[in-house]
This record gives sequence, structure tokens and C-alpha cells, in this order.
Amino acid sequence: MPVVDPLQERVLLMADVSPLQKARAEYSPKLPPVLAKCGPFVKCDDGAPTESVADQADVRAIFPLTYGAPVITFGRSRKTETQALKAAVILSGGQAPGGHNVIAGLFDGIKAYNAGCELYGFLGGPSGLIDNKHQLLTAEIIDAYRNTGGFDIIGSGRTKLETEQQFASVVKTCRTHGITAVVVIGGDDSNTNACMLAEYMERLARADTTQPRIQVLGVPKTIDGDLKNEQIEISFGFDTATKVYSELIGNIQRDANSAKKYYHFIKLMGRSASHITLECALQTHANIAIVSEEIAQKKQTLRDVVSEVATAVRNRAAAGMNFGVVLIPEGLIEFIPEIKALISELNDLLARTGTEFQALQNTDQKIQFVAGRLSTVTAAAFKSLPATIQTQLLMDRDPHGNVQVSRIETEKLLVEMVEAQLKEWKAAGAYKGKFSAQTHFFGYEGRCAAPSNFDADYCYSLGYCAAALVAAGKTGYMASVRNTAAPSTKWTAGGIPLTLMMNLERRHGENRPVIRKALVDLGGKPFAALAANRTQWANANEYLYPGPIQYFGPSEVCDRTTLTLALERG
Amino acid sequence: MPVVDPLQERVLLMADVSPLQKARAEYSPKLPPVLAKCGPFVKCDDGAPTESVADQADVRAIFPLTYGAPVITFGRSRKTETQALKAAVILSGGQAPGGHNVIAGLFDGIKAYNAGCELYGFLGGPSGLIDNKHQLLTAEIIDAYRNTGGFDIIGSGRTKLETEQQFASVVKTCRTHGITAVVVIGGDDSNTNACMLAEYMERLARADTTQPRIQVLGVPKTIDGDLKNEQIEISFGFDTATKVYSELIGNIQRDANSAKKYYHFIKLMGRSASHITLECALQTHANIAIVSEEIAQKKQTLRDVVSEVATAVRNRAAAGMNFGVVLIPEGLIEFIPEIKALISELNDLLARTGTEFQALQNTDQKIQFVAGRLSTVTAAAFKSLPATIQTQLLMDRDPHGNVQVSRIETEKLLVEMVEAQLKEWKAAGAYKGKFSAQTHFFGYEGRCAAPSNFDADYCYSLGYCAAALVAAGKTGYMASVRNTAAPSTKWTAGGIPLTLMMNLERRHGENRPVIRKALVDLGGKPFAALAANRTQWANANEYLYPGPIQYFGPSEVCDRTTLTLALERG
Repeated sequence: MPVVDPLQERVLLMADVSPLQKARAEYSPKLPPVLAKCGPFVKCDDGAPTESVADQADVRAIFPLTYGAPVITFGRSRKTETQALKAAVILSGGQAPGGHNVIAGLFDGIKAYNAGCELYGFLGGPSGLIDNKHQLLTAEIIDAYRNTGGFDIIGSGRTKLETEQQFASVVKTCRTHGITAVVVIGGDDSNTNACMLAEYMERLARADTTQPRIQVLGVPKTIDGDLKNEQIEISFGFDTATKVYSELIGNIQRDANSAKKYYHFIKLMGRSASHITLECALQTHANIAIVSEEIAQKKQTLRDVVSEVATAVRNRAAAGMNFGVVLIPEGLIEFIPEIKALISELNDLLARTGTEFQALQNTDQKIQFVAGRLSTVTAAAFKSLPATIQTQLLMDRDPHGNVQVSRIETEKLLVEMVEAQLKEWKAAGAYKGKFSAQTHFFGYEGRCAAPSNFDADYCYSLGYCAAALVAAGKTGYMASVRNTAAPSTKWTAGGIPLTLMMNLERRHGENRPVIRKALVDLGGKPFAALAANRTQWANANEYLYPGPIQYFGPSEVCDRTTLTLALERG
Repeated sequence: MPVVDPLQERVLLMADVSPLQKARAEYSPKLPPVLAKCGPFVKCDDGAPTESVADQADVRAIFPLTYGAPVITFGRSRKTETQALKAAVILSGGQAPGGHNVIAGLFDGIKAYNAGCELYGFLGGPSGLIDNKHQLLTAEIIDAYRNTGGFDIIGSGRTKLETEQQFASVVKTCRTHGITAVVVIGGDDSNTNACMLAEYMERLARADTTQPRIQVLGVPKTIDGDLKNEQIEISFGFDTATKVYSELIGNIQRDANSAKKYYHFIKLMGRSASHITLECALQTHANIAIVSEEIAQKKQTLRDVVSEVATAVRNRAAAGMNFGVVLIPEGLIEFIPEIKALISELNDLLARTGTEFQALQNTDQKIQFVAGRLSTVTAAAFKSLPATIQTQLLMDRDPHGNVQVSRIETEKLLVEMVEAQLKEWKAAGAYKGKFSAQTHFFGYEGRCAAPSNFDADYCYSLGYCAAALVAAGKTGYMASVRNTAAPSTKWTAGGIPLTLMMNLERRHGENRPVIRKALVDLGGKPFAALAANRTQWANANEYLYPGPIQYFGPSEVCDRTTLTLALERG
């Protein structure tokens, strides 16, 4: 079976596929009825003009040409005369299950529009578009990737597409091939940049009407679940990734409940929001689930967090249970105000005193050097950390000398501090249990899983929807498939103007337009479901064991959505 | 749904179950035809008397009453008059998928024999039998656990059942309830002890004929795959656990092949043999898979192993690929002769010089103290280790002061040493790639997964088979279901005398009878399949993505066995 190797820039022969891959290749993803009936020949029902979610005047000033477009809902229409067009697609940022189906949906959509249409995959993310590294996607290639996980069909990359110079290169690439539409599959940052590119292309089109106009469209991708708003119900990949993590958490819970001797501290991907942790907690009924947004709202210290976990451990020990499962969002420590302040102060301090600091001989000296120069509050926060973490903060720094927060093993940090707290209580006669912990980090395990039925359908529909937007000549839109908590026979499709999701945020010392990240809503139903049950889940063992993703069984097993989606939109 | 909580020793109400648990509860495991037709009413076709695999005279002397029994194959028979009997069951050692189905099969088997039969589950492993902590297993309890993972129905434990005093306690427990058969579900050690208990019970029966005789039977459990021999084709749990690990490895491979920037070093459970790593390599075509048995046979040093991995990384870099997946068996370092010697010498040294060593102030001093006192060869091995591992060896010691080998993070050790080797080559101009690594350890993720169709069927059959052996009055046997590489319609059932699997091994300074562990056979077909393909897998990307265990789909997806079993017995 042919596969594209982005590194080699050629088509290779895949040796073999697994039995599941083979069976799964036969699956036909479901489309919203409007697309299933009409293909890409839809009419665009326009809503009223829109405003951005905040900073309207500023956002309008930055995007004068694409700002304020209406929300589009597709209605049924008839087949029309068409011309063959050429479209480009890139995958941007971290992998998410279903990316291949977005591309398959896009391919099928434009081919249904006109059999002469062509889809160019640009290799290794945005840089492929800038440097014109590409692969013409054929039916044979697409077929080899239907319903598979990963982004390996054309690769992905993290180059930010944001400067005028880069935009000019993209134009050059498009002109070379005669491409008139670019589809960016990415997260909030990539879609922000897609919006800037759309604005650039519109400016160009008005300045020079002799050249064909280039449309730019986005598709909402991220397993983290933080690209979500009133219009975008869910980003693709979240469904599959949380199911893989929940499978593993369930298995570990069963192990904890069988062996009855370990606490498992499980860190889950999701640096800027805790949606994954929340969803997995709802799916598994883990004993403890930390939600970063709540910690930040309550302005808790690290010691507060540790004390809450240790208290739960103590209560369980009193009931004879010296085991359990704790879920931790990857971004936790950045949500703790004192640690956030500490990291920022450390970065400043190390930048200021770099040479002097580097000259110190050993770790102890370095720790003392730093502790003596921090402000009172942050010094206290620093001293509260275990020595291993203090060392990690001072040693592992990025090329700019900044502390590498993502390298901090939060799950081990918590274990060490909970252990110390319990030891204190034990000495004081306030705790009599045993505490032995195992740590885990689940991230890479789920980002490239083969998409669940939901993600297979949703992604294919998003890709097909993007094709319909291309066919309709739209630009600056994100493909949108809605009513997704209902069965796919009730899904609708259309487009959401990218400017609608924008606000201004301070980045690297300047105000920039960005798509607002969706944090866990502490007033929302998913969090309320956790809050209502967590005391019970902490004090007893009401574990659920979701098991692995099923593709072929009864619908209630194979087609269920995430609980987050069901609670938010059901 | 009622569940037993072994800690509370009472039945609790389970709040809810997941959709998959609900659907899976309906599954009816398949039995070998002889048991499906006749239930427990089988006739025992005896083979010739048997001999132990080695040390026949010694083993015979230790087990005079149970030694030499024939292999039993069940044949069809008719229903007979029966009496209600009471049986005991324990789960011993680490969890393995399908344990609950063994108990369900045993329960259904004895109930089919006589509806008045009763099954007592003893709680928390062998200690439950010694201390008479039990739960009478009712149909309602059994039904709640059919086809589920974990050992939580009655819990497990690691107490070794091996002294005459413990055996006497077991007799007391049995007499209290009128129990006349004990079924031990466990690994090689637990089955060795089951054999000793069987011998003890036979001695007792002959000494005092007024009391009912107590039968003892074993069931082969371990995900590690090392309880295997001419008669026992596979231990239960291996199939499911390797499928879970292969799912995750496949997902990570897809991620590696999409992001193209990381090497993933994945450690897999299996301390005393590399069957899991080998099976997972065959299922996923990982770039590199280390087989401990091969390292030992070739008498390789740690530096040799590192050099081989680094060479593969260098070759891939030369072909433009700075990513890949490396599989490492948990027990690796104990198979490396120099490290094995180092650990043994370190244990002696620290035992001899404990006070002096403890008095040293810091890690550097401790490392120098040790390095200066080791023999030349082991000192060299010690010095070749990264500082973090040297520290780990000296710091993390068990209550007896011994080095805790299981705490050594072999996956990180290899990453650090490969990195150092590549740095050297880079300085010499012999390597031009980038090397960035992520580490993983998969163990707990698979031990309690819900059993695959194979394990659900195999375990249920083993339990039912044990019931038939109980009904037939046998003792000192392991339940045996054979021809397992074929569909279950061709499976056979019977019993294998435990003494047949025994040899003498040196343990704690004395010769003891033990069931011989099955290491990876370097002359066998599974290893040959790896050896024939590994150069290709290392130099290209021929990844397979097995995906999650499927329970409901096409038979070629849902009912496939492990490749190890297919190659060894197919």
C-alpha cells in the first residue's frame, strides 16, 4: 500500500497492515445529512454580521477585510456547473486522531465538486507551504490512510506562519501550482495565523485583480479540547484521545483495586486547560482529579493542593484503603499563582545573574544562591519544593535560559510532597496508613490513535465541509459541524468566521489578536458533574472501566461521544 | 451490581458500569468441545507415567506421593450420580487479565456437577487461605465479574504458601468449611507451592483416613509468558496484556512517524523473560527490540548493548530519520553478566561496610567509596554507568540493604548512555543527526485489562477444566487446555501433573524444587521471526498499528491469538 514519506518526499510501499487496520479501512464515515445528500453543492445561508468575542474595534482594525462575516449554515442546493480547482492542505502542530480523515473528506469533497480538482498536501506543516515541499494526493494515497491515526500522510510541524515574508512565500507556492485555496488543519494558534493569512490574501486580491484570489480556511484540531466556543462544539481528536487515556486509567484503577497497595499518580496531556483530566475523571470515576482552573480560581498554593490530596489519602487509609488513583493535568503548576510567580522571577533572576550563577560549583550552592535572591513570597514557594524539583528548575533550561516548565515532572513532585506531608502526620499520630506510589504520564499514547467512530465521522465531515466552503468561494472561515451531541443524522454543517473567535492578548510584550482558549468552565455542567460526585469517588471505589475503543459493536458502546460534549450540548 | 470488597470483607453495591462492561457482560466464553458437550462429566484418559523435566530422582524424593502421575486428556462421558462438594479458590501474585473468568468457569463447572456445590473465594491471596478470610461466591457475585479484568473479585497477594505451619493452617481452614478441593491460580512459584501443598495433603490423607482428603489443583497465570512448556502452551493474560502494550506501542510509533523528532524508549513488563517484548515487536515491527536472553547468550556488556542501539540511531540518521521506537524488556540489566556481577558485589560490599558507608556525607563520596572497593571488572562496569544510575544503585535499597534492581529505570539509563555515545561520534564527525528521546514504562496498563476473546475463552475453559479435575478426584495437577492456536472448536482439555514441570534450582543457598521458567528460546520460531526482520525494521519504517483490542468485530480482528502462540503451535 503506498504511503508518503514526508522526509523522503516520495511514495513508499507499506509492507503490511494489521488486521484491525485492514478491517477499519472499510469503514465509511458518516456525513451531516446536508452534505450526504448534496455533496459540496450546498447553498450558504448567511446569519447576521458577527463581532469578535472581545476587543471588537481592535480586531476589526487588524482584519478590515475579513472581519464581521456572517455565520454560515449550509442548506440543500442543486449541482451546478463547476471548474476544476487546486487546493492545498497542511497539518499544523501536535498530532490529533482523525487528521487523515479531514484530508480524506476534503479530497472526496473537492473531487465530488469536480473530478478534475486536485489536492496538494504540503509536507511537515506550515514550513512545507513556505518552502514548496509537497505531495499531490492521489486516490490511492488517500485510501491508504482512511480512518487511521497519525499525521504521517504529509507530516506536521510547528513553524508559525505569521510574518508577511512567510505569507509572500505561501503566495509564491500557490501561484506555482495554480492553487486557489489553502486549508489549515490546526489548533488555536494555527487558526489565528490562518485568519491573518486570509486577510493578507484578500488584501492581495484587491491590490492585484489580475491574479486569482486565494481562499484560506481552518479546521479545529486539538486533543486538549481548548479550541471550543459557542460555535465550535468540540475540536477533533479530543474524543479519541480521552477514550484512550480513560481505557488506561480504568485498567490502572482495576489494578489498584486488585493489588490494593499503590497510589497511581497519572499526569495527562493538556497544558493550557484541564478538559482532558475532567473528561477522563467523568469516564473513570478516579478517586481524585485536579482541575487547574479551580486551583487558579481559588488562588491555592502548592501546599494547599498537596494538603488536599494528602487528606484524601488519609481518609481512605482510615477506611482501610491504602490505594487509589489521582489524575493531574499537565499544566497544573502553571496555574498555581505562587509557582507562576516563582517561574517568572526565576527567569528574570537567572537572566540578570547568569555568569555569577553559572560559576557556582554545585547544586546546593546554586539553590542557596537563588533562594537568597528571590522575593519573600516566591522564596517561600521555592523552599517548599523538594530538592529534586529545585534542581530541575535550575538545571533544565531552554536555549533562552528560561526554566523549562514542561520538563517538570509534576506527578513526581506531588508524590514527593504528599509523602512528606503524610510522614509529618504519621509522626504526629494523625495518620496510620501506608503510602506507596507509581507515576505515569499519558500523552503520546493517545495523540495518534486510530480515530473513534465519532472522530472518524466528525473529521471526515469537517474536511468535506471545508471542501464545500472552498466550492462556495469563502475565505477566513473555520469549517463547522454542529449538533454533534446528537447522532450524525442530525448534524448540521457550515462555517464560522475566524474573526468571531478573536480577542487581543498580550504575547511577547505586545497585544496580538488570538483565538481565545477555552478553559474549563467552573460554572459548566461537566465540572458540576465532577464537583457533585468527587467526595463520593474519593471516599469509596466507584471506578468505571471504560475499556478500549470499540469500532464494530453495539452503538451504545461504539458511537458514544465524550461526557463533556454530552453534558455541554446534549 | 454487587461486588466483594476484600478489604471490607463484605459485598458492596457497585454504582454503575461502563457501556462496554455492560455489553461485555453478555459474552458467553467458548469451551473446548469435550467440556461444552459433557460439562464436568468427563472421563480421564491417562497417558503413561511421567518424569520431571530434570533432576528426576531428587524431585521424586521430594514428592513421593504425587510424582509421576500421567498426563490426563478428557474424553466424553455420561452424567453420573454426584455429591455436593465445597471448593476453595485463591488468586496468587500479580494480576493477569482473565482471572475472573477462571473463577467463573470453576464456579459454573462445579455447579454443573452438582447444584449444591459451593465455591469459597479466599481473600487477598494465599494469606486469606491461611487466615480463613473468605467470601462465599454466589451466582450474583460471579455474574458481576464475568469477562472483566482485574483480580478484585477476591483480591490477590504475594504471601508464599510454603511452610508446613502454613499448610496446617490451610487444612484447618478447609476443615472448618468442609472444603475438599483448593484451586490455586498463579504463576510458576505459586504452582510450585501448590504442588508442595498437594503432596502435604496426600501425606495427611494417608496418615488419617477418617478425614476427607483435600485435592489441590493449579491454573497457569502470568502475563510474562514464562510459565510455558511442552504441555502448557500459554499462560493466561499474556494474550491480552501484549495486545494492550502493542496498541500503545503502535500509537506511539504513529506519533514518532508523524512528528519525526523523538526516539521513544519503551520498557515493557517481564523481569525474568523477554516474551512480552518479543511478542510486541512482532506485532508492531518496532525499529529495535532488545531480547535479554540474546544479550546473556552473547555475553554482551552494557556498552555493547548501548553501542548497538546507537549504531541503529546513527544509520537511521544517515537516512534522514531522527526518530524511532526502541523496546526494552524490564529485566534487561539482570541479564547483562557484568551488571549482574556488579549488583551481587555491591550487595556484599554494602552489607560488609554498611556503617562506614552510611557515615559518608554526600553522594560523590559514596560513589568514590564504592568504586574504590569493587573488583577491577565490576568497578569498570560501575564507572560506565551514568551518575544518576550510580546514585540510584546506592540510594534505593530494600529493607535488607540490597540494591533494588526493579527500581532502576533501564529505559532512562539507555537513553543517557546512547546520548553520550552519539555525542562522542558527533565530536569525531561520525554522526550528524539529532537525538531527542522520550521514555515510557508499560506494565500496570495491561495487567488488569478486560480479557481479549482469547483470554476470556481460555480462562473460562481453564476454570471449567479445573472443576472437571476436582470432579474426577485428581490432585497435584495443573488444568490444561491445548491446541490453543486453533479455533476453540478444536481445543482439548485435561490435566498435567505439576511434578512433570519441576527441576531443582538453587534458591537462597539451597536446592529447591521449582517449575522451570520458560525463557525466550533463541532457537524458536518467534525469535527467528524477529531475527529475520529486524535489520529491515531498524532501517526503514514498516510499523504496524495493531489498535485496541476488539470484542465485537470480524473474527480475524477479534479472535486472533498472539504471534508467539501462532508461530510456536500454529
